[in-house]
Amino acid sequence: MKVVMAQKLLRANQKVARENRTRLGRILAVNLVSSPGAGKTAVLERTIAALKGEFRVGVIEGDIYTTRDAERIAVHGVDVVQINTTGVCHLDASMVARALDEINLEDVDILFIENVGNLVCPAEFDLGEDCKVAVLSVAEGGDKPAKYPLVFQEAQAVLINKADLLPYSDFDVDAVRQEILAINPEIDVFVVSAKTGEGLEAWYAWLKKAVQRKQGPSATG
Amino acid sequence: MKVVMAQKLLRANQKVARENRTRLGRILAVNLVSSPGAGKTAVLERTIAALKGEFRVGVIEGDIYTTRDAERIAVHGVDVVQINTTGVCHLDASMVARALDEINLEDVDILFIENVGNLVCPAEFDLGEDCKVAVLSVAEGGDKPAKYPLVFQEAQAVLINKADLLPYSDFDVDAVRQEILAINPEIDVFVVSAKTGEGLEAWYAWLKKAVQRKQGPSATG
Repeated sequence: MKVVMAQKLLRANQKVARENRTRLGRILAVNLVSSPGAGKTAVLERTIAALKGEFRVGVIEGDIYTTRDAERIAVHGVDVVQINTTGVCHLDASMVARALDEINLEDVDILFIENVGNLVCPAEFDLGEDCKVAVLSVAEGGDKPAKYPLVFQEAQAVLINKADLLPYSDFDVDAVRQEILAINPEIDVFVVSAKTGEGLEAWYAWLKKAVQRKQGPSATG
Repeated sequence: MKVVMAQKLLRANQKVARENRTRLGRILAVNLVSSPGAGKTAVLERTIAALKGEFRVGVIEGDIYTTRDAERIAVHGVDVVQINTTGVCHLDASMVARALDEINLEDVDILFIENVGNLVCPAEFDLGEDCKVAVLSVAEGGDKPAKYPLVFQEAQAVLINKADLLPYSDFDVDAVRQEILAINPEIDVFVVSAKTGEGLEAWYAWLKKAVQRKQGPSATG
């Protein structure tokens, strides 16, 4: 809610985000952002299953209410901490700082932070992550990058998810890719389906490279 | 962003909302809220086409950026005013007050206000409307009411949209209906497809009744 967001508040957030970044050290921290129901949790479930043999994965689940997503993640046998914002529409750095107290950071290579489902507000808050990754569902329609540009400006990668619905949709992948690249020419775009697994190998490879960049060449297990 | 939302701000909004409500008088004002891409604009296009022979329709389009939705609405030959919030994640009453200056209220029976796509923040702001109506897409998944309850508490009706995608989804309409009614037992639930037109007649009938309640028995054209 930018109207009342004092610069003071953002500066205070930035200070805690810097502290988080220092604490995270060699851990790759990925802040997943999207609209409600774009498929962040489903992408995360697939990604954990694919990578947990090679990397030690931790998860922070951000939701306004409920622990449903954390329960979905916990069955995959990784450490998960739920943050309930009780009404607040995004995670901020101090919420993440409290969650980090609950995680044994020595035992984590990749930390996924699943933000509250909201294509607007989370884009403005640095949590201390290495990168934001946006998830955009085919079912949301191709006009979303132009209408909600900040999250696509801030993200290093975007997963166009629910590709299994492309046959039943007028979503034009090439046109949307161009719209996203017009907003952020540096962004990496992956077309995936968390339901079928389609396209996810390239996303896993992107993550592995990001871990290696963070930890140095000795990182791969 | 509840963390910094001073009671003062909400009180100021409430005051302007009351002024809007007075200005709107006998006009039925409907505040459409949903996640990005749930189909508010598509529902609105169908609804305008169905009702414009009987009622005089006005539209306020709320978007962070772009005039795409207003352009989609304008081709239906109704008065439409675009509000660009330029970063703000919801409409507030003062934005709507300025938009009302641009509308000839004498010529309107139903005013639709399409909010910014956001399932969190718009729920907290009274715009001076008669009712909020939520749109929930089948593609978003059935866990959204429990995870984002405020919008369903505040709404008088919910349209479960994109019913055409039900065959390709694990969305359980009856279970979701029960979840919504557990949050708000008074809410009316419609299962619709803005793509095929399925289920929309009941929604149009609901709107007609609401206009009649607002204007008295002489309302119907």
